[in-house]
Amino acid sequence: MARVVVDVMLKPEILDPQGKAVQGAFGRLGFDGVASVRQGKRFEIELDGEATPEAVAEIERAAATLLANPVIEDFTVHVEAGV
Amino acid sequence: MARVVVDVMLKPEILDPQGKAVQGAFGRLGFDGVASVRQGKRFEIELDGEATPEAVAEIERAAATLLANPVIEDFTVHVEAGV
Repeated sequence: MARVVVDVMLKPEILDPQGKAVQGAFGRLGFDGVASVRQGKRFEIELDGEATPEAVAEIERAAATLLANPVIEDFTVHVEAGV
Repeated sequence: MARVVVDVMLKPEILDPQGKAVQGAFGRLGFDGVASVRQGKRFEIELDGEATPEAVAEIERAAATLLANPVIEDFTVHVEAGV
């Protein structure tokens, strides 16, 4: 089995209220030195077989249609070794 | 500036209905070969300064108190190079 990870984040130009709320909480709890916080989604996809280029390409297509909203979100796909 | 990433995932033994829903959608859209899908949160934290060991330790403390619910979630912290 192989694990493919899809990380979905809001595009930089999109306001991230959740991130701003977390950043505010950091400050109130005394965690300083934080310039900004952005929150997104992480999908861990376990494949039946190996992470062949075809399988990863299929996950990328699924990410673009199912996991991310291409209008406001960017996504990255990477294979996690040795899981 | 340095970027520290906190990934928060449900513990393996905790049922993940969102992940199950995504897995079902994968199947309906014809993406086969997926054994399981788990969904979690990704936080991208930009620091004012460098990611010193002290700064990363502080982010780990914040993650344990603010970003993850230690009863049902695990988290990992890593510094993203070259951002």
